[in-house]
Amino acid sequence: MEYFPAPGRNHLFVPGPTNVPEKVIQAFSRGNEDHRSPAFATLSKSVLDGVKDLFKTKTATSFIFPTTGTGAWESALTNTLSPGDKIVSFRLGQFSLLWIDQMQRLKFNVDVVDCEWGAGADLNILNAKLAMDYNHEIKAICIVHNETSTGVTNSIPSIRALLDKHKHPALLLVDGVSSIGAIEFKMDEWGVDVALTGSQKALGLPTGLGIVCAGPKALEAAKTATSPRVFFDWADYLKFYKVGSYWPYTPSSQMLYALRASLDLIFEEGLDNVIKRHARLGEATRLAVAAWGLKLCTKRPEWNSDTVTAVVVPPYLNSLDVVKMAWKKYNLSLGVGLNKVAGKVFRIGHLGFVNELQLLGALSGVEMILKDIGYPVVLGSGVAAAAAHLQKKTPLISSRL
Amino acid sequence: MEYFPAPGRNHLFVPGPTNVPEKVIQAFSRGNEDHRSPAFATLSKSVLDGVKDLFKTKTATSFIFPTTGTGAWESALTNTLSPGDKIVSFRLGQFSLLWIDQMQRLKFNVDVVDCEWGAGADLNILNAKLAMDYNHEIKAICIVHNETSTGVTNSIPSIRALLDKHKHPALLLVDGVSSIGAIEFKMDEWGVDVALTGSQKALGLPTGLGIVCAGPKALEAAKTATSPRVFFDWADYLKFYKVGSYWPYTPSSQMLYALRASLDLIFEEGLDNVIKRHARLGEATRLAVAAWGLKLCTKRPEWNSDTVTAVVVPPYLNSLDVVKMAWKKYNLSLGVGLNKVAGKVFRIGHLGFVNELQLLGALSGVEMILKDIGYPVVLGSGVAAAAAHLQKKTPLISSRL
Amino acid sequence: MEYFPAPGRNHLFVPGPTNVPEKVIQAFSRGNEDHRSPAFATLSKSVLDGVKDLFKTKTATSFIFPTTGTGAWESALTNTLSPGDKIVSFRLGQFSLLWIDQMQRLKFNVDVVDCEWGAGADLNILNAKLAMDYNHEIKAICIVHNETSTGVTNSIPSIRALLDKHKHPALLLVDGVSSIGAIEFKMDEWGVDVALTGSQKALGLPTGLGIVCAGPKALEAAKTATSPRVFFDWADYLKFYKVGSYWPYTPSSQMLYALRASLDLIFEEGLDNVIKRHARLGEATRLAVAAWGLKLCTKRPEWNSDTVTAVVVPPYLNSLDVVKMAWKKYNLSLGVGLNKVAGKVFRIGHLGFVNELQLLGALSGVEMILKDIGYPVVLGSGVAAAAAHLQKKTPLISSRL
Amino acid sequence: MEYFPAPGRNHLFVPGPTNVPEKVIQAFSRGNEDHRSPAFATLSKSVLDGVKDLFKTKTATSFIFPTTGTGAWESALTNTLSPGDKIVSFRLGQFSLLWIDQMQRLKFNVDVVDCEWGAGADLNILNAKLAMDYNHEIKAICIVHNETSTGVTNSIPSIRALLDKHKHPALLLVDGVSSIGAIEFKMDEWGVDVALTGSQKALGLPTGLGIVCAGPKALEAAKTATSPRVFFDWADYLKFYKVGSYWPYTPSSQMLYALRASLDLIFEEGLDNVIKRHARLGEATRLAVAAWGLKLCTKRPEWNSDTVTAVVVPPYLNSLDVVKMAWKKYNLSLGVGLNKVAGKVFRIGHLGFVNELQLLGALSGVEMILKDIGYPVVLGSGVAAAAAHLQKKTPLISSRL
Repeated sequence: MEYFPAPGRNHLFVPGPTNVPEKVIQAFSRGNEDHRSPAFATLSKSVLDGVKDLFKTKTATSFIFPTTGTGAWESALTNTLSPGDKIVSFRLGQFSLLWIDQMQRLKFNVDVVDCEWGAGADLNILNAKLAMDYNHEIKAICIVHNETSTGVTNSIPSIRALLDKHKHPALLLVDGVSSIGAIEFKMDEWGVDVALTGSQKALGLPTGLGIVCAGPKALEAAKTATSPRVFFDWADYLKFYKVGSYWPYTPSSQMLYALRASLDLIFEEGLDNVIKRHARLGEATRLAVAAWGLKLCTKRPEWNSDTVTAVVVPPYLNSLDVVKMAWKKYNLSLGVGLNKVAGKVFRIGHLGFVNELQLLGALSGVEMILKDIGYPVVLGSGVAAAAAHLQKKTPLISSRL
Repeated sequence: MEYFPAPGRNHLFVPGPTNVPEKVIQAFSRGNEDHRSPAFATLSKSVLDGVKDLFKTKTATSFIFPTTGTGAWESALTNTLSPGDKIVSFRLGQFSLLWIDQMQRLKFNVDVVDCEWGAGADLNILNAKLAMDYNHEIKAICIVHNETSTGVTNSIPSIRALLDKHKHPALLLVDGVSSIGAIEFKMDEWGVDVALTGSQKALGLPTGLGIVCAGPKALEAAKTATSPRVFFDWADYLKFYKVGSYWPYTPSSQMLYALRASLDLIFEEGLDNVIKRHARLGEATRLAVAAWGLKLCTKRPEWNSDTVTAVVVPPYLNSLDVVKMAWKKYNLSLGVGLNKVAGKVFRIGHLGFVNELQLLGALSGVEMILKDIGYPVVLGSGVAAAAAHLQKKTPLISSRL
Repeated sequence: MEYFPAPGRNHLFVPGPTNVPEKVIQAFSRGNEDHRSPAFATLSKSVLDGVKDLFKTKTATSFIFPTTGTGAWESALTNTLSPGDKIVSFRLGQFSLLWIDQMQRLKFNVDVVDCEWGAGADLNILNAKLAMDYNHEIKAICIVHNETSTGVTNSIPSIRALLDKHKHPALLLVDGVSSIGAIEFKMDEWGVDVALTGSQKALGLPTGLGIVCAGPKALEAAKTATSPRVFFDWADYLKFYKVGSYWPYTPSSQMLYALRASLDLIFEEGLDNVIKRHARLGEATRLAVAAWGLKLCTKRPEWNSDTVTAVVVPPYLNSLDVVKMAWKKYNLSLGVGLNKVAGKVFRIGHLGFVNELQLLGALSGVEMILKDIGYPVVLGSGVAAAAAHLQKKTPLISSRL
Repeated sequence: MEYFPAPGRNHLFVPGPTNVPEKVIQAFSRGNEDHRSPAFATLSKSVLDGVKDLFKTKTATSFIFPTTGTGAWESALTNTLSPGDKIVSFRLGQFSLLWIDQMQRLKFNVDVVDCEWGAGADLNILNAKLAMDYNHEIKAICIVHNETSTGVTNSIPSIRALLDKHKHPALLLVDGVSSIGAIEFKMDEWGVDVALTGSQKALGLPTGLGIVCAGPKALEAAKTATSPRVFFDWADYLKFYKVGSYWPYTPSSQMLYALRASLDLIFEEGLDNVIKRHARLGEATRLAVAAWGLKLCTKRPEWNSDTVTAVVVPPYLNSLDVVKMAWKKYNLSLGVGLNKVAGKVFRIGHLGFVNELQLLGALSGVEMILKDIGYPVVLGSGVAAAAAHLQKKTPLISSRL
């Protein structure tokens, strides 16, 4: 069944869920099976190991919850912290806002650092807070690596540097939902204690897996954290890891086979090549935006995100009209502006299994839409700017040399 | 990729995950899409309405969580109850045990009624407890409708009758994971306040949806329940229902299309015909067990489950050997005995999209296995008994008359 | 398994096989079934009727062979003609050349009209031949409606007009492989006696069906045609049509379900809207080619094809390098130049289930490739020209108004 | 879309099309691709080599036509023989009858040896014919290895022995449609000149591939054979083999990926193990038939087929009623009796990817049907007999030891 069908392919450029490769669809197009069989244990171990490679960690323990990014957040928090624990967190977009809302509702004591939407985390404030926290009351720093609503990528190494500078023992919890597997992420090297992502972003899977890696310090914290938890409890998983059956309750076999296929695709391409591809596509998109005479929501280049570009429309336009026209005329799915930037911003997601020509098709769509809704764009201008970059930077496909 | 491949089809007779119909596989074999499009809202409304028909409720509100049955439990409890609230619950098998464990870890005050494994809930004890609860300290009765580990179906109307008799306002929370959509379940008529199921049982879907229906009294209770909750919070969903975008966070589009397909199959067959089919298959299985000279784990016929049959092996055998031989020789997946009945019981699941010949194939497999491991079965005996019943009771397929 | 994998989606712009819609993939992703069941007869009748609507015929009889276009050709010839029969046919590209080769090997007496590659059929020559054929020795006119190798569409009504003018009884056999379902085709109105297509073109199916419609005069001719034939014999099919079991040998159920889905998509969009979409995409492509300063292989606008554009490269370039670079760098599949135009021409297919942004992505790819291989193209120029046309001409998607 | 849906899985026990393994469905669930890319050439070579292993030949050349078994027949005949050539062939069931009909319509001079339906080829007659053929007028012996309509397997080595004994140069053409990949077949060792099969039988694929292997003598004969042929012409294929692009016209990429997957499954299991499995299932079926008190259509055990069992019903019953009841009540697909044995025989196919419990399920279905239509069967009797055999003979699954 299809609701509101349209000719040709849907161009999916929301910043998640992302395009699912055919090999991944094939992998999950299967019936159910007994999740207590030896076959299933083999699969399970394989993907639990594979996601650690994706997070670039050798020391952490991985958990794959049948949930979403929101559930992964909950798992990260409730396993490491106790009600009343002090958290420092940055509110600089819709997803950091939602995570903070979750922290508050779970009864943590959140010291919210509000930053301008479009800016990255204010490290000076963090520096000051850490400097003054003589008693180490701050139990965790929670940060969204890539704020999907504003196209802002925060520097995790800078945060780690501050913690190290102050020899502060706070846990570092990082939401990597729209970064891990697409933007450089080095869990071990950066000293991240808990990192997490969702299946429907860089991994190009259906929604339904919340993937969490917990480093040794986080696992240690989990032993004493008193936040109530059952579904999201790491301890239950660890018990089943020990006996080699892996799952305290039923997992989705389809999703795990899909995850295996997605990891295979990523490591075949090479994780670093995947990251370079995202850098290439991100830069091309930003060049197009500039050629259109539009501004990014992102305030400074250092924060530019290579997975999502938030574009500010002129004040006389409503960004929602861009998104509506995209869907109604070109079968193109773009992201709306959320909350504070609703109506002002539309978003082009360029993460996951997407390549140069897919992006250029979408950018040409945005050009036409801008014209459709009355913005004086020169058709071809953005595509030309993006193509100039891509033509130079795109390498030959390694398997086809 | 296949781990430990075997010729021919896997015979999936664990009591969940169950066989996925080809139409359902087709329905979820698809890429991602923008879950904020009008198309998605139309799909969402359709399945949210559809599951209410499955639960036979017109008054309840439905929630479809990207989670499992364990998460659905957590949602039912945390939305209606506050830490310290008194719950009466029955421990009569592994799944009721796990739910009670969850209740305790979520800090509810559980008055556990331990019953023999194989028996149903002891209604006399419940009667006594309700009679003595002058102050209505009992806030909820939590019961597993069909205890999958022992093949026991509890009578929900009897529990409702007791509550009514005592005019007791306690909420009635029912785990219908291995019953709803397969065994008669009438949420409204039986006065169930919260009912829940998982996608991988009667619905024949992959694991990954926890489906919860909450009646008016439960929704009212949710307004004051203080259990911390975010991912599982009904209130967030209700907010999005109001604006017609339905999802506080990203759902799995694939699973919702699959759910739509599954509901279509069920209602095309007719929910009551589906229930009759399960009754037919359940009875056939029990007749086979009797013909083999084996006993059911279920203590009395009134508790016989039509979705799973737990079979007791003679003391000189280990039931795990039945399950292992099934997998190693016949590509047949059976359920092991859990916890108290480990080694003593194996389980034949017969729920979901399964028909007479699938069951008879599995039963003939069990016969051969019993012989393989040294039990003096007469080959053909169980199949003959089951077939005699099925040949009489199976109606012509209505679409093929 | 994937050979030579590449990141992101393959951009399939060969003039067939074409993009398969997800709904069609879902439709054929299924097991086998008994092709002698009543269900199968229902499906069979449904698609046999459906293809008649596609061909715009009410009077013809449809045949769906498990073969390719080459087999459909053979079926058209051997059922209507006898060895030695005189055929007039036009050789103006690779596919008309191959069909003529087939005619000759099947021992027909072919009066070949050679035309320039890039030109349409020379109607003056046909006129002369018909005028002089007092004895009606010409038994058939065989013409390729759309010559895929040169991007030339012939006017079938003009040929019918000549036949009518001369009151000539010759059969009119039309290869509609790369036209039917994409370019206007009116079997009955145009007096076509046999028309045929393949599944992997406008229908967006896998290769494997040769679809033939035979009008009353052709069916009559079949009664006396002495060409040996068994597999391709209409008579065998007609025998099974009569008894309602439809297939003299086993058909592919998967392909028939896929055909059903494809026809549904086409008629949901509206066949005339499908044709308009192809006109829009064809014109956009030609505008891009002009903007790049390149020439079409097609000699005159009246012959422009809306399903494939053959582009001539400057003499100092090898068109094969365009196709190679497309595959090696951009995961774009273009058509090579064949036979006489090998090395001189590359081809952009734009038929089937393809939309504006898909095409613009491909055109932006061609621009980059031209630059890659040393042609002085202005990046963005072709896309701008195409987009200007598309932005104006593309209607809102009717289901999303 | 489903026509006449039924609960649970269809039990597909016609002797082809057969059950498609999930891995094969996954393999063909994909879009189209450019069949002229290097990737496609790699795939093509892989499957062309693979089918030679399946036919147990190192000396033959393989051809994979986008057609059915009927087309493969036509290819075998027209490439090796000229109109008027004398063929000796045996008519002992519906498929040998149809092949002979094809030979006659293709203008060969067929010396038909009519044998009783249910008997194998009469080798004495062949012996006599060869003995008297001093001038080697017989150009080919054409034989159906396994006659699907009667469940008769002919001995190919015996035919080769007669040819050798008489030093007769006639070509040996063998239809292995329902044998190759399921019953022992040794093309080189047995001196078969042309062997062929279809995709929808032992290979468990959709219909749509006609697979032909031609030995050196057959290829030599093709050089002078004058039968008109284009679509089925080996010479066109050989031309494309030479240049490494393999296909004279468009093949089905989906089917070739599916074939690759099927061959992988067969060779993973081990071709000899596959053959043993068929022997086991065939014997079990025959034991069941005997237990029911029914007769085989096959006249002598030496001719028993391990891929299909044709069962004779008592004269007071119509075998069509067995097939109808199977479909209408049990979602079981059985084969009808064809032509001479219509109404007298029903057929149980047991070839391809089918295992013990699938068969036992089907046999239990047949028992119930026999009872349904008034035959005094003892329910369980056939299953018991079959199970006794299978329980003893079925090895542990090698990957699960």
